[in-house]
Amino acid sequence: MHSVQYTKTLSSFVVESRFEQLPQDVIHEAKRALLNFVGCAVGGSREPAVDIAIRALAPFSGAPTAKLLARSERFDPLYAAVMNGLTGHVFEYDDTTPMNYIHPTPPVGAALFAYASANRTTGRDFLHAFLMGFEVESRVGNAVYPSHYNAGWHITATAGVFGAAAAVGKLLGLSTQQMIWAMGLAATQASGIREMFGSMAKYFHAGHAGRNGYLSAILAKSDFTAGEYALESPRGFAAVLSSEYDLSKITNGLGEDFQIRYNTYKPYACGIVIQPTIDGCIDLYRDYHPSPDSINAVRVRVAPLVLDLCNKKEIRQGLDSKYSIYHAAALGLVRGKAGLQEFSDAAATDPTIQMIRERVTPVADPSITEDQSHIDVELTDGRTISRFVQQSLGNIHRPLSDRQLEDKLRDQSQPILGAERVDRLIELCWRFDQLQDINELITATIP
Amino acid sequence: MHSVQYTKTLSSFVVESRFEQLPQDVIHEAKRALLNFVGCAVGGSREPAVDIAIRALAPFSGAPTAKLLARSERFDPLYAAVMNGLTGHVFEYDDTTPMNYIHPTPPVGAALFAYASANRTTGRDFLHAFLMGFEVESRVGNAVYPSHYNAGWHITATAGVFGAAAAVGKLLGLSTQQMIWAMGLAATQASGIREMFGSMAKYFHAGHAGRNGYLSAILAKSDFTAGEYALESPRGFAAVLSSEYDLSKITNGLGEDFQIRYNTYKPYACGIVIQPTIDGCIDLYRDYHPSPDSINAVRVRVAPLVLDLCNKKEIRQGLDSKYSIYHAAALGLVRGKAGLQEFSDAAATDPTIQMIRERVTPVADPSITEDQSHIDVELTDGRTISRFVQQSLGNIHRPLSDRQLEDKLRDQSQPILGAERVDRLIELCWRFDQLQDINELITATIP
Repeated sequence: MHSVQYTKTLSSFVVESRFEQLPQDVIHEAKRALLNFVGCAVGGSREPAVDIAIRALAPFSGAPTAKLLARSERFDPLYAAVMNGLTGHVFEYDDTTPMNYIHPTPPVGAALFAYASANRTTGRDFLHAFLMGFEVESRVGNAVYPSHYNAGWHITATAGVFGAAAAVGKLLGLSTQQMIWAMGLAATQASGIREMFGSMAKYFHAGHAGRNGYLSAILAKSDFTAGEYALESPRGFAAVLSSEYDLSKITNGLGEDFQIRYNTYKPYACGIVIQPTIDGCIDLYRDYHPSPDSINAVRVRVAPLVLDLCNKKEIRQGLDSKYSIYHAAALGLVRGKAGLQEFSDAAATDPTIQMIRERVTPVADPSITEDQSHIDVELTDGRTISRFVQQSLGNIHRPLSDRQLEDKLRDQSQPILGAERVDRLIELCWRFDQLQDINELITATIP
Repeated sequence: MHSVQYTKTLSSFVVESRFEQLPQDVIHEAKRALLNFVGCAVGGSREPAVDIAIRALAPFSGAPTAKLLARSERFDPLYAAVMNGLTGHVFEYDDTTPMNYIHPTPPVGAALFAYASANRTTGRDFLHAFLMGFEVESRVGNAVYPSHYNAGWHITATAGVFGAAAAVGKLLGLSTQQMIWAMGLAATQASGIREMFGSMAKYFHAGHAGRNGYLSAILAKSDFTAGEYALESPRGFAAVLSSEYDLSKITNGLGEDFQIRYNTYKPYACGIVIQPTIDGCIDLYRDYHPSPDSINAVRVRVAPLVLDLCNKKEIRQGLDSKYSIYHAAALGLVRGKAGLQEFSDAAATDPTIQMIRERVTPVADPSITEDQSHIDVELTDGRTISRFVQQSLGNIHRPLSDRQLEDKLRDQSQPILGAERVDRLIELCWRFDQLQDINELITATIP
C-alpha cells in the first residue's frame, strides 16, 4: 500500500473546501466553462442521438423532477444527467484540458445541472461543487495520462465519473468517509473505450459518466460501502486501468494549482487538428478578401497527424466536413468564418466551397506542430498570399476571450432560442454566482 | 483489423439461434443454474447492502412494473436488474465457471428476471435467452482470462454486461446489426475492479452489469449506434482491458461446445478454497461421528494459497468465519454440515466449534492442489482418523447432484419462505421450460 492515501486526501480536500477560499480568477474560469457548456448543449440538443436516447429511455425514468438543458422533456435527475451529458458533448465542441485530453465540463456539468434542477441550488454552491468536480477529474486524469488514454480509454468518461461523484457529493454534504466510498463507487464504474469514437456511443459516455458519478454519491450518502483505496490500491483505478501512472499528480498543489486554469475552448465546430488551418485561412480572408474565382491553388503544410486523421476529400454531408483539411481551408477562404453553418450539410455541398476544396493540396511536414499550419494561396494574378499560424486560436497560450466565448454560444444557440433569449442566457451565465436558483438558467436554455 | 469479425460472428449466433437447436443437457444445466440463482437471491435478500440500495435508489425508479426476486418492493425493470444482481451475488454462494472465474448467472439472471417481470415472457424464451447470455459472457471471459482477471478486473462484472446485453437483446428480437451495437454499448460500460472486494460495492457489480447490459439492448433496439468491432478492435474490449487475449475462444465450437456444461456450484456458504477441508471433515463426521470432547488435535494439509487467503483464527462474526480454515475444519467435525447456519454469528461464537477451532493446525503443502485437503484427526483414545479429499464436492468432476442443489436452495430459503413455498419454488424451477409466464416463479420467491 502507498504511504500517501491519495483517495482520502482528495476526498478530504473536497469535503473541507470552502467557497471563500476559491480565487476570483478560478471562479471566473468556472463561469466561462459553464457558459461554453450550456451553449454546446443548446447547439447539440436536436441531434438524432439525443432524440433516440430520450425516446428509448423515457419509459424508465422516475418521477420527472428535473428539467433537461435545452429540451422540453423532463426526467428524474439521474436520466437528466445522461441527457445533459449527451447534448453537451454530441457536437464535440466542448472544452478540453490539453494536459490530459479530457473534455472536463460535460460529465460534471451534466450531473450538476440535473441535480440542481430537482434540488434547489444556489449559483454559489453550484460553482463550488463544479470546481471540486473539475479538480478531481482533472487530477485523476493527470495521474494516468498519457498511458491510460493511449491504451484506448476515453478519458472524458473514465475520469469524468470521479468528477461527477465529487461534485454531487459536495452538494449532498458527504462526510469524508462517504466521499471515499463515492470515489470507490466511481472507480468501479469507470468505463468508456475509444472504439466507440465515430458512433453515438461516444456521446453517451459523457452522460453515462455524469449519471454514474451522481449514483455513486447517492449510494455513498446512504452508507453503501466501497473499497477505500480506489485510486492507489494495487487493484485500484490507476493500477488496473493504466500501465504507467504518477499518483503524486493527484495531490501536488491541491487547493492552489487549480486545474481549470488550463482549460481551453475550440473556436470552430470541427476536429481540433484542422483548426490552425481554418485560423490561417480566416486571417487571409480578412486581410485580402480573395474572390473564389481568383484562387488557383491552396497548399497547406501541416503536422503528419492531420493527414492521418483528417485527409477526407470525398464530402457528402456535414459530419464528413468536420474531419476534412480540404474543407477547413476552403471554408476559411470562402466564408471567413467557421461556425456551425460552415459544417452543415448545406455547406458541405456548397458549389463554391466544393470548387476551392478541389484546389487544396495538403502536405505532411514533421517540422510543423499539431497546433500550427502554413498556408500558401496562389492567385490567378500570379501573386501568392501566405500565412503561418504559430499557435491556433483557443490554444492555452491564445485563449478565447470572454467575448469570443459569447459569440460561440450565440452561433450555436441563436437558431434555436432567438437573439433575445440568447442575450438573457449569456447574462445569466456571467452572474452565475449570484443566482438564487439554477433553474432560472436551466429554463433559459429550453426553447 | 482482425480477419475474423468476432463481434459480428457472436452477435449473429445469438440472433439466429433457435430453441429447437439447444441440446437437452444444456437446457437442464440452465435450469440448475437458475434454481441455484433464485435460492441465492432468496438467501441474500435480507442483507444490509440490499436494504440500503433499495432505500437509496427507490426515489429514482421509473414506473414500478417489475417485481424483484425475493423482495416485496417494486421497481422499473432496470433498477430491478440492479437489485436482483445484488441479492443473487451478496452471499457469494452463486455459481462459478472455473475456466474463467466468472459467477455467470447473476448478471444475466438479474437482467432477465427484471425484464420478464415487466414483459410477459415464457419459460422457454427465458431459458433460450439465458443460454445465449451465458454463452456470450463465458466466451468473452474465456478470451481475456487470466490476464484480465489478474490485472484486477472483477470479471463477473466486465464479462457479465455482455451476457446481459445478449440475453435481453435476444428477448427484444434485435437484428444482427442491433446486437452488434448492443455488444458495443456493453463493451463501453464494462467496469468493476477487485479493489471493491470486501465491500458492498462488490455485490453491486453483478446488478450494475445486469442493468447496463439491459440498457445496452434497449438503446440498440432504438438504433442508438456504437462501435462495431467492440471485441476485436485495437481500441476494443480485449485490447484495452487485457494485456493478453485469445479471441479464437469467442468463436471456436460456438453452438456446439456450450459453456454452461462447465458450470459449478459451491456446496458451502464460504470461501471456495476451504471447501475441500469442509468436505473431508463432513465425511469423517458421517463415518466416525467423533464427539467433540474426543478430538485432541486436527492437522490439515492444504495448498499454500489456502493459508494466504483463509488463515483467519480470530473469529468474531459470521463474515470472518467464511474465510477461516480453522472454522471450516471445526464445523465439519462438530456439525457434519456447512449451510448458512454454520456461518452465522451464532456459529462463529458457538463454544463447541470454538473449542475445536483452537485444536486445528493447518499446514501449507505445495504438493496439494487448491481443490484438495488432507485431514488427520487425533482422538483421545489414541486413534487417528484420516481423510484425503482428491476433488472437492462441487468441482467440475464431482458436481452437485440436482438433489444437492435443491438442498442448498432449501437451506437458504426455508427460514425466509417456509417449507411449503420452497417445495413449490423448486418444482417451478424444474419445469421452467413449461412456464407460460415467469412471473409465476418470481412471485414464488417473494415472502
